[in-house]
Amino acid sequence: MTGDKLVYLFEEGNAEMKDMLGGKGANLAEMTRIGLPVPPGFIISTETCNLYYQRGEQLLQELKQEIQKSLSSIENKLGKKFGDVNNPLLLSVRSGSAVSMPGMMDTVLNLGLNDETIKGLEEASQDKRFTLDCYRRFIQMFGDVVLKVNHSFFEKALQNKKEAYGANDDTELTAEALGELVEDYKSIISEQAEMSFPQDPMEQLTAAIRAVFDSWNNHRAVVYRRIHKIPDSLGTAINIQAMVFGNLGNDCATGVAFTRNPATGEANLYGEFLVNAQGEDVVAGIRNPLSISQLEELMPENYRAFNDICQRLEEHYKDIQDIEFTIERRNLFILQTRAGKRTSRASVKCAVDFVKEGIISREEAIMRIEPGQVDKLLHRQIDPEAKLNIICKGLPASPGAASGQVVFDADDAEKMDGQGNEVILVRPETTPDDIHGIVAAQGVLTSRGGMTSHAAVVARGMGKPCVSGCEKLSIDLEREIFVVNGTTYAKGDTISLDGATGNVITGEVPLIAPELSEEFQKILEWSDEIRALKIRANADTPEDAAKAREFGAEGIGLCRTEHMFMAQERLPVVQSMILTETEVERQLDLDKLLPMQQEDFSGIFRAMEGLPVTIRLLDPPLHEFLPVVEELIEEITRLKVGGGDSKEINEKEGLLRKVKALSESNPMLGHRGCRLGIVYPEIYKMQVKAIIKAAAELAKEGIEVIPEIMIPLVGHATELLVMRELVEETVKEILAQEKVEIDYRVGSMIELPRACVVADQIAGHADFYSFGTNDLTQTTLGYSRDDAEGKFLHHYLAKKIIPDNPFMTIDREGVGSLIKLAVEKGKAQKPDLKMGICGEHGGDPDSIIFCHEVNLNYVSCSPFRVPIARLAAAQAKLGKKAGGYGD
Amino acid sequence: MTGDKLVYLFEEGNAEMKDMLGGKGANLAEMTRIGLPVPPGFIISTETCNLYYQRGEQLLQELKQEIQKSLSSIENKLGKKFGDVNNPLLLSVRSGSAVSMPGMMDTVLNLGLNDETIKGLEEASQDKRFTLDCYRRFIQMFGDVVLKVNHSFFEKALQNKKEAYGANDDTELTAEALGELVEDYKSIISEQAEMSFPQDPMEQLTAAIRAVFDSWNNHRAVVYRRIHKIPDSLGTAINIQAMVFGNLGNDCATGVAFTRNPATGEANLYGEFLVNAQGEDVVAGIRNPLSISQLEELMPENYRAFNDICQRLEEHYKDIQDIEFTIERRNLFILQTRAGKRTSRASVKCAVDFVKEGIISREEAIMRIEPGQVDKLLHRQIDPEAKLNIICKGLPASPGAASGQVVFDADDAEKMDGQGNEVILVRPETTPDDIHGIVAAQGVLTSRGGMTSHAAVVARGMGKPCVSGCEKLSIDLEREIFVVNGTTYAKGDTISLDGATGNVITGEVPLIAPELSEEFQKILEWSDEIRALKIRANADTPEDAAKAREFGAEGIGLCRTEHMFMAQERLPVVQSMILTETEVERQLDLDKLLPMQQEDFSGIFRAMEGLPVTIRLLDPPLHEFLPVVEELIEEITRLKVGGGDSKEINEKEGLLRKVKALSESNPMLGHRGCRLGIVYPEIYKMQVKAIIKAAAELAKEGIEVIPEIMIPLVGHATELLVMRELVEETVKEILAQEKVEIDYRVGSMIELPRACVVADQIAGHADFYSFGTNDLTQTTLGYSRDDAEGKFLHHYLAKKIIPDNPFMTIDREGVGSLIKLAVEKGKAQKPDLKMGICGEHGGDPDSIIFCHEVNLNYVSCSPFRVPIARLAAAQAKLGKKAGGYGD
Repeated sequence: MTGDKLVYLFEEGNAEMKDMLGGKGANLAEMTRIGLPVPPGFIISTETCNLYYQRGEQLLQELKQEIQKSLSSIENKLGKKFGDVNNPLLLSVRSGSAVSMPGMMDTVLNLGLNDETIKGLEEASQDKRFTLDCYRRFIQMFGDVVLKVNHSFFEKALQNKKEAYGANDDTELTAEALGELVEDYKSIISEQAEMSFPQDPMEQLTAAIRAVFDSWNNHRAVVYRRIHKIPDSLGTAINIQAMVFGNLGNDCATGVAFTRNPATGEANLYGEFLVNAQGEDVVAGIRNPLSISQLEELMPENYRAFNDICQRLEEHYKDIQDIEFTIERRNLFILQTRAGKRTSRASVKCAVDFVKEGIISREEAIMRIEPGQVDKLLHRQIDPEAKLNIICKGLPASPGAASGQVVFDADDAEKMDGQGNEVILVRPETTPDDIHGIVAAQGVLTSRGGMTSHAAVVARGMGKPCVSGCEKLSIDLEREIFVVNGTTYAKGDTISLDGATGNVITGEVPLIAPELSEEFQKILEWSDEIRALKIRANADTPEDAAKAREFGAEGIGLCRTEHMFMAQERLPVVQSMILTETEVERQLDLDKLLPMQQEDFSGIFRAMEGLPVTIRLLDPPLHEFLPVVEELIEEITRLKVGGGDSKEINEKEGLLRKVKALSESNPMLGHRGCRLGIVYPEIYKMQVKAIIKAAAELAKEGIEVIPEIMIPLVGHATELLVMRELVEETVKEILAQEKVEIDYRVGSMIELPRACVVADQIAGHADFYSFGTNDLTQTTLGYSRDDAEGKFLHHYLAKKIIPDNPFMTIDREGVGSLIKLAVEKGKAQKPDLKMGICGEHGGDPDSIIFCHEVNLNYVSCSPFRVPIARLAAAQAKLGKKAGGYGD
Repeated sequence: MTGDKLVYLFEEGNAEMKDMLGGKGANLAEMTRIGLPVPPGFIISTETCNLYYQRGEQLLQELKQEIQKSLSSIENKLGKKFGDVNNPLLLSVRSGSAVSMPGMMDTVLNLGLNDETIKGLEEASQDKRFTLDCYRRFIQMFGDVVLKVNHSFFEKALQNKKEAYGANDDTELTAEALGELVEDYKSIISEQAEMSFPQDPMEQLTAAIRAVFDSWNNHRAVVYRRIHKIPDSLGTAINIQAMVFGNLGNDCATGVAFTRNPATGEANLYGEFLVNAQGEDVVAGIRNPLSISQLEELMPENYRAFNDICQRLEEHYKDIQDIEFTIERRNLFILQTRAGKRTSRASVKCAVDFVKEGIISREEAIMRIEPGQVDKLLHRQIDPEAKLNIICKGLPASPGAASGQVVFDADDAEKMDGQGNEVILVRPETTPDDIHGIVAAQGVLTSRGGMTSHAAVVARGMGKPCVSGCEKLSIDLEREIFVVNGTTYAKGDTISLDGATGNVITGEVPLIAPELSEEFQKILEWSDEIRALKIRANADTPEDAAKAREFGAEGIGLCRTEHMFMAQERLPVVQSMILTETEVERQLDLDKLLPMQQEDFSGIFRAMEGLPVTIRLLDPPLHEFLPVVEELIEEITRLKVGGGDSKEINEKEGLLRKVKALSESNPMLGHRGCRLGIVYPEIYKMQVKAIIKAAAELAKEGIEVIPEIMIPLVGHATELLVMRELVEETVKEILAQEKVEIDYRVGSMIELPRACVVADQIAGHADFYSFGTNDLTQTTLGYSRDDAEGKFLHHYLAKKIIPDNPFMTIDREGVGSLIKLAVEKGKAQKPDLKMGICGEHGGDPDSIIFCHEVNLNYVSCSPFRVPIARLAAAQAKLGKKAGGYGD
């Protein structure tokens, strides 16, 4: 006993009741309400589904009574009766939750048919063949969908029958053949489902209802909900509706149409239909459907009426509609309307057009665009018309597409690129040593590593396609080949990557250039007017900075200086600087690096004229710049066993000792960040000099420069204090030499839990905070990003131990709580403290919503994510919630 | 202008005014107040010292006026006048802050003497030689202490004079010689200090006052304060007192006495004196002083008076007193009293005796004992009488002392131990692979690693001495030698370690057995009655468990199961279990491990009958049990270059691939803790089976067992939920087989910042929490314990970036705040949630105070720290504050 209403007639509902009636049901109710020709029906509520599960998968007694009552109402409307031999009411049964879930149960049509009621249908249709065809279809659907009989049994029986009667097509089967097929189908059910096909229409209906409820928790549905973050508690509604027939003759038809072109967004009716057919025939593609425009010629009155209804529905719902219709003996029925699925391009165009047409507001237009989807508009794509020879599939790690010759080595990539070849870098995984190879390559393919592996992160930062973790790839670096499913690909072979799907393709593919369309520009302009968050970019080079500015970045939120240290011609100087024993020698190396760094900064400042540029001083542990221990050991052992030169052995062993002395068990938690600056102040001092000299030089040219110097990995306020003193002294010294004034700020990365806890203390010495959510996630959760994905994260996601990859979408409860705490403590101490976020999360729409909610001033993301961030920030301002499961 | 009083006559102060008058001054005032014969004087307040620094090291005008007034008061009392030619007042000037600081300035005696006033002194003493001796001593002291002239100049001049006069001893110098020496000394000052020796007594006094204030910030004093956590803001007072002379003839004497024996605590006057001498002579050891008991024979009246005063002072201060006295022509003067420094043993005995004598309460006795100091009472010590040949000094990483033969390899250690030899394991550093060697050795010596290195932590856990980070040691593992300062020590040589001092000693040394004395037992019993915190121990073996119980542990707070996996005969099975490809094969290995683990647990449960035993399921990443990548690479390269067997090479390469696949960039943040249990539930299941089978077996014997199963590294409530389900199902299964009931609990380690933040959610599935402060410190601060000490931590401590080693004493502001948050959230969700702490901090007195303050239920520490923890917990209850700089 619940006391609640379990079943709603269409005329009792409306579009607002989506939660209770499901999307499909609410729309049917709404269409009924506004007077459209909808076959009568009723909806079993989502609440009933939840009650079904709460009661251990039992249907409520009350439900049966309410269904009976609703059935009577339909029967009265149509003058038919469910199970009546003379004039039987037939029903369609469809699932429909509040959000569209293609993973769930399909429709059951023609429910109510049995050995008796077919007589009444034959009488009404005056068509025996049609009647038997309806019956056999119903048995097949019921068997497949409700009784879980593998559909291949039915297909085989149909095939056999066609062969026996020499029919090429289903439509060529005679009434007699269909009659036999009905019996064959019943036998299949008896054997496979171990029950006879239920003849009682009420029993049929009850079984179908159970099947729909059960389908809510089938594997596909559960997986779909997990992927799309749909709560299990929504439940599904069931739509039960009187059947209408598009297959009662040539004055019948059935079809589907979009109110606008879902691929391009153009404002023309777009769709197809079949004369004398059931809806499933359109989908199945047995006959070639006709374009919707042809309906105008064949059934002009129906077309006009349908066209009017389409206009009305689009205006009513203020969105592109995807409408199913059936014409039964020249009577038009609307069976379903829903928001039309569309491409990102269409989505953007329609949203802008709707604004122009006065249908929706700018705010509504902005909220319509899924930021995650427009990503691909910013990268080259494979022509959707192209036929592809897909070798295998990895993770879609960085969007975009590219073709090129396979290379297995970063140096080779650089060489071949220099010779004018386009290359794809293929590696088991990449490391910072491979950066120059990634720069040179069109795209990156790895056999190991996840969505946040080194290759993925770097490629995303550069806007290049990357397919990572392609486990089927067996790479042999020595022989320079990779093998997939028995086929070998060698160096120089051409392959293509689709970083948006993870597809790896043989040969070259036609690509479509990215396009920041006029409409998309418009959406972004509107977003800029609305959003509260500023958008900055992470950029380490003048080129990236220029790209970021072009995409609308309002400054640089993170300029990493270590990539500058990695450049090939500088690395020897950096290594010497690290390995030297004395401060004097180190200073000599630093003096060599100074003009190089100054030039880097100069270029970036110039590109960002008038906008703030946040430069993070050296962050990674020094051993990242040195040779790898394992390789040195191999070399030394080779030399020793092979009787190599003892002087060389000694030298290498000396190097090995130094590298080992610098190496760490957990480099992520090691001697890095400001710990370097405190132990080796001369390194940070050089960097500050380079920054301020570059700024001073430009200032003299009249270029406005706003440098923000950022200290990484601060955990104690004393660390920032000491570093700030170093910065201020150095700046003073340089400005006195250069005789100019530069406005600059000194701030702190907040990327350790301790920093969040003592954020009030740190604020005392900081002009700004930048939350380094990558490291903060690693430390708060105790996850090493480099290790977690390959080791346990996929398992955790699959088993729902955690809801999202915390390196992609911010962990609100854990990391988010600490950020919130830090914001509160920081602002309490210094109300005008500027705060932002840098790192991967800065380009993630859900994380951007979080940043807006906790009142950060800006997010900073890779240049290619800037447009998405602009949009997501506007949506956040407009009240969008994170984890929204969209439509 | 401050308006505050800057100078206090002795009679204006009392013992309570330590902060203002310094310890020495307050005691002089107190003694004056209770009528003891103290030479009159006055004190310049600590506040004046702070003002001196605030005003840029300027003395206040008001100060000079107040000094003048106080001098007049003394002059009136004694009928002498400062600077008077006829009857000069001479002064002693001594520094004295609120806490004793041996690193500060020494005393200046006889201040006020000059070329004129010596005449008055000669008149008064009727002794020219004495007078000139006083003068030359004063010039020397003033030159050394106030003018910073290197004392070697004075010593050389004295030596020259002795040679010139053929004197063997200072006392043999004639008045004439001394007169010459005075002039020599004045010349030295002119040359070295570039000023003439000041003749104006007031100028002398002002210079001495400045020198004392300046000494507050001399290098030694600053270092001393840092080490002893004394705030810089205390400042020092200055005691200025009329001189009395113990060297005016044979009716004079001077000496020092303790009211009780400071080595043993026995209640006898203990001390020494010299007839006809100044105080400094007693200390300098020029003549052999006499035992204080001999004073009774020589000057019985003075002795009785002194003895009475000693009793009175001890009763007054309720503590052992260290008293300086001078007898001037049969007049007894008390120059100083202070709490006597004593050994830990004496400290304990006296505290208990004072209680028996009704002088102090039990609570006061408990508060008297410094928990850090009594540590050594629990370990073997080197006989303090022994003469030691110290080779070098490392860090005092684990207390206790041991002698044994040097070995360089864990296997050798085990072998030699098996042959009945005592060995000392010498390694550059130790790893989990060396555990069996540490077990076999008497002590461990490492050349690398800090106080929390692997060797240090493991040795402390086992109660064995360890000297770590002994950087002077150059170890050559291949040749099995180590070299220190040019001397070579080979395998088999005998050395000794003192883990309390860090000394490494050649040869064998006499050791004193540890002693849990009757008095110490008493202190611990009283502590047990008072403390709120329960004390548990970390123990992984039945032996450790028994030891812990003997020391008073009330349960086991952390039983690590991985050490059990490391045992030599098990490691191959564990390795096979890890490397196997299939779950079936893994299960076979687990089935082999099950009875072994069961036996481990059975022994521990038996030792802990009736007390709770918290067992942590497998925590470390699996690759810790596998061969090391670097060694494998070396082997493979050797085989390859040397033309080795290709089958062997293939096998090793296969192994290398697997080890590499399991290895991680940051193992600390990797696939470990409950992440193992979730991905490989069969491992945890085996462990739970072993626990419950062991418990069931003992329960059938009638032995009460209280198992607490602890899940490590929980960050999400879902993790604990899933693991709890696994535990509960497994327990149910075993108990059904065994047909007994066992009460057990399931709890969570809280060792990740995220766990603290969502502690309310986790509480929903936990019966108890145990804060793993080692890992929580690593993640909150982003410090890898293995890396931090060698890389930057010492620098951070030296530069005061952080106040304490956060792995020794809990970081209250960072880690502590998160623990506090977790306690609040946990208790809000489940008010009766039991909470404790395990890990190194559980045995650290300051951290124990923190645990008490945040209302934890227990601390768990290594067995050898249990008594200390019992004491510290009682002190916490009695209101002791952490970081107290004691006396």
